[in-house]
Amino acid sequence: MRYTITITKREVAMVIENYSKLTAVFINCSIGKDVSKSHTQKLMDKVSVIMKNQGVTVTDIYARSHQIATGMIKDGAEQGEADEWPDIQRQIVDADILVIGTPVWLGDKSSVASKVIERLYAYSSDTNDKNQYVYYNKVGGAVVTGNEDGVKNCSRDITYSLGHIGYTIPPQPDAGWLGAIGPGPSYGDTEYAGKKLDAPAGFDSDFTNKAVETMAWNLMHMAHLLKSSGGIPAIGNTTNK
Amino acid sequence: MRYTITITKREVAMVIENYSKLTAVFINCSIGKDVSKSHTQKLMDKVSVIMKNQGVTVTDIYARSHQIATGMIKDGAEQGEADEWPDIQRQIVDADILVIGTPVWLGDKSSVASKVIERLYAYSSDTNDKNQYVYYNKVGGAVVTGNEDGVKNCSRDITYSLGHIGYTIPPQPDAGWLGAIGPGPSYGDTEYAGKKLDAPAGFDSDFTNKAVETMAWNLMHMAHLLKSSGGIPAIGNTTNK
Amino acid sequence: MRYTITITKREVAMVIENYSKLTAVFINCSIGKDVSKSHTQKLMDKVSVIMKNQGVTVTDIYARSHQIATGMIKDGAEQGEADEWPDIQRQIVDADILVIGTPVWLGDKSSVASKVIERLYAYSSDTNDKNQYVYYNKVGGAVVTGNEDGVKNCSRDITYSLGHIGYTIPPQPDAGWLGAIGPGPSYGDTEYAGKKLDAPAGFDSDFTNKAVETMAWNLMHMAHLLKSSGGIPAIGNTTNK
Amino acid sequence: MRYTITITKREVAMVIENYSKLTAVFINCSIGKDVSKSHTQKLMDKVSVIMKNQGVTVTDIYARSHQIATGMIKDGAEQGEADEWPDIQRQIVDADILVIGTPVWLGDKSSVASKVIERLYAYSSDTNDKNQYVYYNKVGGAVVTGNEDGVKNCSRDITYSLGHIGYTIPPQPDAGWLGAIGPGPSYGDTEYAGKKLDAPAGFDSDFTNKAVETMAWNLMHMAHLLKSSGGIPAIGNTTNK
Repeated sequence: MRYTITITKREVAMVIENYSKLTAVFINCSIGKDVSKSHTQKLMDKVSVIMKNQGVTVTDIYARSHQIATGMIKDGAEQGEADEWPDIQRQIVDADILVIGTPVWLGDKSSVASKVIERLYAYSSDTNDKNQYVYYNKVGGAVVTGNEDGVKNCSRDITYSLGHIGYTIPPQPDAGWLGAIGPGPSYGDTEYAGKKLDAPAGFDSDFTNKAVETMAWNLMHMAHLLKSSGGIPAIGNTTNK
Repeated sequence: MRYTITITKREVAMVIENYSKLTAVFINCSIGKDVSKSHTQKLMDKVSVIMKNQGVTVTDIYARSHQIATGMIKDGAEQGEADEWPDIQRQIVDADILVIGTPVWLGDKSSVASKVIERLYAYSSDTNDKNQYVYYNKVGGAVVTGNEDGVKNCSRDITYSLGHIGYTIPPQPDAGWLGAIGPGPSYGDTEYAGKKLDAPAGFDSDFTNKAVETMAWNLMHMAHLLKSSGGIPAIGNTTNK
Repeated sequence: MRYTITITKREVAMVIENYSKLTAVFINCSIGKDVSKSHTQKLMDKVSVIMKNQGVTVTDIYARSHQIATGMIKDGAEQGEADEWPDIQRQIVDADILVIGTPVWLGDKSSVASKVIERLYAYSSDTNDKNQYVYYNKVGGAVVTGNEDGVKNCSRDITYSLGHIGYTIPPQPDAGWLGAIGPGPSYGDTEYAGKKLDAPAGFDSDFTNKAVETMAWNLMHMAHLLKSSGGIPAIGNTTNK
Repeated sequence: MRYTITITKREVAMVIENYSKLTAVFINCSIGKDVSKSHTQKLMDKVSVIMKNQGVTVTDIYARSHQIATGMIKDGAEQGEADEWPDIQRQIVDADILVIGTPVWLGDKSSVASKVIERLYAYSSDTNDKNQYVYYNKVGGAVVTGNEDGVKNCSRDITYSLGHIGYTIPPQPDAGWLGAIGPGPSYGDTEYAGKKLDAPAGFDSDFTNKAVETMAWNLMHMAHLLKSSGGIPAIGNTTNK
């Protein structure tokens, strides 16, 4: 499977000129404590590097490295808890693009991803200066890795929730990696390669690489389209306040 | 709950000028044979009338009134069956907007909705003149009615599938209606009103009406944004052919 | 990965004596017209042969070989359609075990599986002679095959729906097969073996084989447990009639 | 809607005699800090009191009142964190019945429920004395409350995960409460009653009450059936060790 990207000169000029003003937040919701061991991070990095190459300012957040309170609350202080979420929220609101990464456990997204979505939701009645929900005119996507099953299920949950609170979801907004059924390698593992006939090619799945590229570009294209056009007109979609 | 839409003169002008060129297909995937009894149709009509008022050309399709073959096929003729899908497909490909309506059964979308999604998927490797998947530069949404539970689950499935094959999903792309837990009225039923303390207000749920309005406008806004801008640039998202 | 089954003499005697009275229905909900090409059938057969070896009477139904009406109806005749479901329903009600097989499309179960579940649901207010729902004291499971993603999602939908209408779901009630992410072989395909480094071993996945065995036995164990004990006592779970 | 439970003398005697040896753990996975404000707890209590009336020993755990570490780990100490889960795990392994309660947020179970499921999963390779997974011969169920939508989706996730790790899922293993679409009362709220025509009857939904009863009894029936029969025979379902 090979693919070629044909970019006309005009398109390249447009891209280089414009996308460098975009900003993105990538939140990795792995459940392990140590980001250096996160397979999901490896795949998220493949998406973010494409954006960085176009000049997008990318902020990486490893959720478990931050104290994030649980609850339908804006600030853990409301219930007497330390909470770094308000600062994370500020970065998300300032960014044009949000990518949530999650591992798959039992076919489902992680509890950390669920907590992050709950916290986003707690701010969902905030509004922008057009009286639309605060997440309007931003775009969202998902990165998912597991060892056998569940990319679509996790991505479906994440992107639907983002859309429900105001994000625009561009076409093919997700990238994932899975090995064949049963226990086996995780994304980026190299110790299996060539040892088992059924060892997937790890980092070098053409399919995953293509999804990574499509997702990265579609998020940028759509973020730029929204930004350069002044955003979704404030007709029919303003809040009740 | 009251809300007011504030539209500036410039916005009205823009809207009236542009949205009349848009086209939409609404497919109702109810499982009953008779469209006149479909509660889902009543809610779909509330969405489509907002579009019609802006001059959008809307085509209504009641799936069960057509013979639609089952299978991962482009034409039922491939397996010796009569099939009206190729004609429906042409209308979908020609339209800027696709709305899939479904009732909820056991918390899930209908088998008819599943069949329609399978048939859309069978064409998902077709491409447009930019070598993107054929559903690129179109927008999708969902309308769901049930008597107690499952709007989000159905809408999540439908909009994720549409996004996976190339549709753009605008913010809050769905509208639904549910009564309280347990058997009870369906959308638009009037015989319960006032008779039971817990009878929902039927047609006149402010929440559902607001979702209807938001969904209709966001589909139009995004379809116009894609159309007037020349669509998503063909960078990073073209097919492998 | 190796496993050994240790069966004591007493257990063998028990098993041979009892399980031969059990009956099972396996419904394959593939969307292709021709059962001989169904990958799902190949995996279902692996489950059913274990039951047959214990003397269980197994009825195989390939849904697409039958005319099954669409709707929340007991008989298509209600809406003037030919319908073989009433006959299938009778076999299901007579059986102790029901296994629904489905392929994965877009991470979801097939439209045929959805239709079968809707038809089962249409009878869900029927009762047995203890005034429990008619599906009580029966056990259910799922077989799922796809080429990359969605076994758990499909199985979750199917087994939840079966449980909702009265089936008991034994532990680990499902078996599935998936290749690695992206297009590739389907269950039982042999043409990929050895040709690609990442070609899964097809039929011979130890993981899938183990799931097949567990599922087959747990369905039999639980069906026998329910049958030999007189079923779930009719306390707290009878209908409102 | 009225229903009558007919219990024969023999059945009453059986029930009173046997079910008093059963034990159950109810884990409430609400996201609020204060159990006294949990609507889900009110509904869980309705299930547990039915069990207590039969002599079942019930342990109530409010997850957020305990420090539960995040990760695919048996003990937070592995990553240097305080963790009360090992003690909770012991109670779960000792019990015949497990009920997980969750609120609905965005149509999905809570992050706390996801974390609890992850921690259960981390022990899923533990075995009982028959070399079956440690959760075999136990039964599981779910209680879900929300204000508009998602009971089935949450229950489906929870019961599937429990089944996947070894629990038996009896028929109709869940109870839930939802109001009509849109914001509104939560389970047990009384301030709406009579004030709005569409205010659901709160505590007194016949439908929810019936589900509560069915769920409570089916969990007891099935737990007793498994316990009194010596459990699922260790044929075909033992682990690979």
